[in-house]
Amino acid sequence: MAQEIPKTTKQWKVTGTSGFDDLKLSEVPLPELGDAQVLVKMRAASLNLQYRDLIIPKGQYGFAFSPGVVAGSDGAGEVIAVGKHVKRFKKGDKVVTLFNQGHLGGDIDRAAAATGLGGAIDGVLRTVGAFDENGLVPLPEGLSFLEGATLPCAAVTAWNALYGLKRLTPGQWVLTQGTGGVSIFGVQFAKAAGARVIATTSSADKAKLLEKLGADHIINYKENPNWGSKVREITNGAGVDHVIEVAGPTSMAQSLKSIKMEGVISIIGFVGGTQDPNQPGFLENLLRMCTTRGLLVGSRSQMEEMCRAIEANLDKLRPVIDSKVFKFEDLKEAYEYQWSGKHQGKVCIEIS
Amino acid sequence: MAQEIPKTTKQWKVTGTSGFDDLKLSEVPLPELGDAQVLVKMRAASLNLQYRDLIIPKGQYGFAFSPGVVAGSDGAGEVIAVGKHVKRFKKGDKVVTLFNQGHLGGDIDRAAAATGLGGAIDGVLRTVGAFDENGLVPLPEGLSFLEGATLPCAAVTAWNALYGLKRLTPGQWVLTQGTGGVSIFGVQFAKAAGARVIATTSSADKAKLLEKLGADHIINYKENPNWGSKVREITNGAGVDHVIEVAGPTSMAQSLKSIKMEGVISIIGFVGGTQDPNQPGFLENLLRMCTTRGLLVGSRSQMEEMCRAIEANLDKLRPVIDSKVFKFEDLKEAYEYQWSGKHQGKVCIEIS
Amino acid sequence: MAQEIPKTTKQWKVTGTSGFDDLKLSEVPLPELGDAQVLVKMRAASLNLQYRDLIIPKGQYGFAFSPGVVAGSDGAGEVIAVGKHVKRFKKGDKVVTLFNQGHLGGDIDRAAAATGLGGAIDGVLRTVGAFDENGLVPLPEGLSFLEGATLPCAAVTAWNALYGLKRLTPGQWVLTQGTGGVSIFGVQFAKAAGARVIATTSSADKAKLLEKLGADHIINYKENPNWGSKVREITNGAGVDHVIEVAGPTSMAQSLKSIKMEGVISIIGFVGGTQDPNQPGFLENLLRMCTTRGLLVGSRSQMEEMCRAIEANLDKLRPVIDSKVFKFEDLKEAYEYQWSGKHQGKVCIEIS
Amino acid sequence: MAQEIPKTTKQWKVTGTSGFDDLKLSEVPLPELGDAQVLVKMRAASLNLQYRDLIIPKGQYGFAFSPGVVAGSDGAGEVIAVGKHVKRFKKGDKVVTLFNQGHLGGDIDRAAAATGLGGAIDGVLRTVGAFDENGLVPLPEGLSFLEGATLPCAAVTAWNALYGLKRLTPGQWVLTQGTGGVSIFGVQFAKAAGARVIATTSSADKAKLLEKLGADHIINYKENPNWGSKVREITNGAGVDHVIEVAGPTSMAQSLKSIKMEGVISIIGFVGGTQDPNQPGFLENLLRMCTTRGLLVGSRSQMEEMCRAIEANLDKLRPVIDSKVFKFEDLKEAYEYQWSGKHQGKVCIEIS
Repeated sequence: MAQEIPKTTKQWKVTGTSGFDDLKLSEVPLPELGDAQVLVKMRAASLNLQYRDLIIPKGQYGFAFSPGVVAGSDGAGEVIAVGKHVKRFKKGDKVVTLFNQGHLGGDIDRAAAATGLGGAIDGVLRTVGAFDENGLVPLPEGLSFLEGATLPCAAVTAWNALYGLKRLTPGQWVLTQGTGGVSIFGVQFAKAAGARVIATTSSADKAKLLEKLGADHIINYKENPNWGSKVREITNGAGVDHVIEVAGPTSMAQSLKSIKMEGVISIIGFVGGTQDPNQPGFLENLLRMCTTRGLLVGSRSQMEEMCRAIEANLDKLRPVIDSKVFKFEDLKEAYEYQWSGKHQGKVCIEIS
Repeated sequence: MAQEIPKTTKQWKVTGTSGFDDLKLSEVPLPELGDAQVLVKMRAASLNLQYRDLIIPKGQYGFAFSPGVVAGSDGAGEVIAVGKHVKRFKKGDKVVTLFNQGHLGGDIDRAAAATGLGGAIDGVLRTVGAFDENGLVPLPEGLSFLEGATLPCAAVTAWNALYGLKRLTPGQWVLTQGTGGVSIFGVQFAKAAGARVIATTSSADKAKLLEKLGADHIINYKENPNWGSKVREITNGAGVDHVIEVAGPTSMAQSLKSIKMEGVISIIGFVGGTQDPNQPGFLENLLRMCTTRGLLVGSRSQMEEMCRAIEANLDKLRPVIDSKVFKFEDLKEAYEYQWSGKHQGKVCIEIS
Repeated sequence: MAQEIPKTTKQWKVTGTSGFDDLKLSEVPLPELGDAQVLVKMRAASLNLQYRDLIIPKGQYGFAFSPGVVAGSDGAGEVIAVGKHVKRFKKGDKVVTLFNQGHLGGDIDRAAAATGLGGAIDGVLRTVGAFDENGLVPLPEGLSFLEGATLPCAAVTAWNALYGLKRLTPGQWVLTQGTGGVSIFGVQFAKAAGARVIATTSSADKAKLLEKLGADHIINYKENPNWGSKVREITNGAGVDHVIEVAGPTSMAQSLKSIKMEGVISIIGFVGGTQDPNQPGFLENLLRMCTTRGLLVGSRSQMEEMCRAIEANLDKLRPVIDSKVFKFEDLKEAYEYQWSGKHQGKVCIEIS
Repeated sequence: MAQEIPKTTKQWKVTGTSGFDDLKLSEVPLPELGDAQVLVKMRAASLNLQYRDLIIPKGQYGFAFSPGVVAGSDGAGEVIAVGKHVKRFKKGDKVVTLFNQGHLGGDIDRAAAATGLGGAIDGVLRTVGAFDENGLVPLPEGLSFLEGATLPCAAVTAWNALYGLKRLTPGQWVLTQGTGGVSIFGVQFAKAAGARVIATTSSADKAKLLEKLGADHIINYKENPNWGSKVREITNGAGVDHVIEVAGPTSMAQSLKSIKMEGVISIIGFVGGTQDPNQPGFLENLLRMCTTRGLLVGSRSQMEEMCRAIEANLDKLRPVIDSKVFKFEDLKEAYEYQWSGKHQGKVCIEIS
């Protein structure tokens, strides 16, 4: 099916930092395609945890941010043209975006950390966009564009947590918190890899989702505020090999109680806030003989490795998408919905 | 249930190297238990591939072998007494033997390679035996003694192949050959870890077993003598990440065709013989940009890691035992049966 | 030279927790040697950082401690007899002790962490002692007993910091703090491995020692309280790959400023105290994209790896021993001297 | 110093495969610079082992080769212009070429293996050339252009051998063969990393060079055709951890005798020929419990890691260049000289 190359693109720009009203939709001419660029007709996007897409328009984002940037880091689409030096893709290929466009492999560095899509570099919330050929990966076979659009941030982050420092092994224990995007992918990746999962949540409804995904044990953290002890009990006193920590100071003390000696707590976010006078300090690393690691999504080679895992385990690793899918024009409503916390699974946008 | 400590043990010794008739059953007094030893009432044993238990009595074994040694490397049983310095076990514990008694962790070395059970050190084919406390691991929860007895050689070897050099990752491809012990465990471990499996076999009957275990593709190597090309095709030209090579010169050329760049061919055995004027040489490592590795079972820490994987995935990792289980007294018949190649799954001995 | 086996041993026991006066010297009969034990005529011992040997008699030790235990974790000596099942050593061998007697390889676990010599298990400050054969390693060739006695705690800890999680590579940057035992070994190991070292100190005198050991940059942290910025400057803004953190809350903020993205801060001790209301929290892991790891000495296989490194690099890795060496009888004075902080290099005891 | 951008480039093309006379020098107009390209004024190049540059013009090269390609894979130069999307370099930067232009990180794959400079893609033997910004790395500080030009093939290959599969650790043993480019870098990297080196050679003259580079033991393989036994002896029977095998069938049997259990033989080349009816087969992997790996240079991230090691150890890692340096116009003589085998160190070309 021949795709005509459009002359213009509609795009959502972040024009200020006072709130979602600073997201502005406009239509602009498409610039000439660079030699090493790939022109993508965007088909779908997904939104991220509070600390990313939601806070960029709210002005709280700590990473590189170019004012006027096109919003959105997570998207999927179809290649409609390629620059003359492009080797990795051809017209008709289906692609997903790489979060940090410059993080191709190995450890992240400051240069790569400054290439976040929708932050430093124009993102995915547009009808057509040109991306560096190195900043895209093939859509995993068997996934729809909507499903592919959930991967760049949440899934790669979960994968990096489980494989980036100490590689998850079948039989190990993984602890996840809640049902945010990273946590859900964390449960799915762990189960597909033959690991065991303990998941915390505060809602019976979300517990059902976690159970369906295969979580071996589910702890209601409101009913068990001292859930770290419960985790010890479940693991015969040893603790878990991996914690995917998303809440920060509010849960860190329990995560530290939960972790095994030489286990890894991957610190993903601080949705529970960043300030807490009682939050535990680094002495705990020594007392628990454990490792804590902050991480920022992951590299293209990690994403490719993850995509192979998804393709091979589609029955277990199909992305969970909230039942409410938004239209491109209704982006602000989508952000409000994500902000409300009512969603279960990724909040997605159908672009075309 | 109080176990009385017997005064004697019945044991099968390897008294010569001319064939199975050199296996002699005798009853001898139990020596005094050492400070660091654990006395185990043996409950079950399993036999190994031709190149191990079968060739020790046939005199073809290349590794350390002490004449008059008690036969058998793979056993499971119950602790009925412990020496006064023993810390790892207590009376009543259920245990499985470690193949190379001195290989506790890390790379194998010459000292550890000279501690094979049933070769250099008295083995498991006895009613009661004393083992060094370091040479045992707990029976995985949920396994019977018979099932546990299948693990020390075949399962640990398969685990070492998949995790000993380059760790298997979900989504990778694993190639296995036939339905010997190592190959079956290879299929099971790979599937439990979210990998994909291509298995070769020559029989429709065995193909059914492989399918049941989850193999994604099964190739009849008699019908497809050039099966390496088929493997390339299935993997879109890339090749597989891991080959578990058990046959040697007869299949090595096809394994080399099957392997991905930087993939690992784990060389387990040469059941297809050791001499072949046309067998490929090491130049192939360079032409294929691949790695080949010979391996000798695995360490205690690998076995413990594997046991955790088994406990967490009992539905997928339950050892496959041949329908014919032999009595302790009928050991020679068991060896003849294993030698015949008619079995499917491990050939096991019920000791008590 | 034939060693006669003594009938008694003189030993320093920790009889209470109120201070160095609770160290008591006594002479007791030698118990019968176990089958798996090695009898060692102790020749030398070394003392550790404040947080270990010094605080056991002061009652502040957080790890496993058996009242009445023979003191001292770090010793070297000569084998004068072996139990009948001992395989690793023979009479005449020179040996060094393993800190956690049960930590043979792999990750430390709770069982292994409860086997500290001179804490949970009788230690090295005695004239003759029996040790489990697994709790000793050969004295590196070319080292004296005094030099060997410095290795079990400080050297293995430094090695674990540099090789236990992310392996040090030639060309990487390592930051060390002060001239305590772990820090000095840290400088030496890093330089012998082709890495670059930035060392902090507060004294011109100690700076000379660090320079002699090959430190590439030395920062006086009193003159540069904001030394993290200086480290950034030296490393062209990238930060260092490894920090060996010994001081805790007082220096952690600067260590965090110094660390590279994905770099590792190994948290060894809190000689700077454990309480500080302003100490940084785990949010810093996320903001710096770094890893922090608490560690407790290291395993026997790490120690063996380290000993090979020492043997191959004796010119660079000869242990630094304080000029004042104490007699066995003067143990309390040795502890007082170590406590005073006046030493440069390890404080050692000549036992025989 | 302002560099004017030339209108033309002089270049050596490989026009056929019958010998060095198929190298043709011509002057052609420079094409327009691509958006993602970097224009480099070439300053120096180096030639490779027989099996690369020498055999391309002789028609024996097994890897991807485009007829009419500009020759040469190893070069260094100065950036004189950058395309408008280039981010990694700016005018004035000094750069070195990446051998496989598409091998940025991780395992090599078939796509990356088809991007060899001077084989599939226009190479370095030209006065000015445009390269993809991803196919260059900064010249290590402290190296001249000539020295930098020695790195892309030989040095990266040696680094990959020592760090690509099992990472070299201080105290390990490395065996190198002869004084070709890879072997010399192998000695240098091993010594800078605190390892021990056994080097073979057949000439007293070359032995002197090896000694100067720090080799701990030098074996004359002509005088000791059974040198594997000698290696065993030197290593107290254990064998070496790494062999860098360059000769192939002629030396492989001795390399196998030399290797430690679980050691790695990196198979770099077959300068000793590829056919030998008596060459050992893969059964040896099993008998020696060792790993053999074929490798093809290395990735950009390995090269960057290596460059940091060089910068930090310039005293030990300065590239060895043959005393005879050739002019750009005299390329054929340079090839003849390399072919003669009389050189010691890399044969280099001064381009401008």
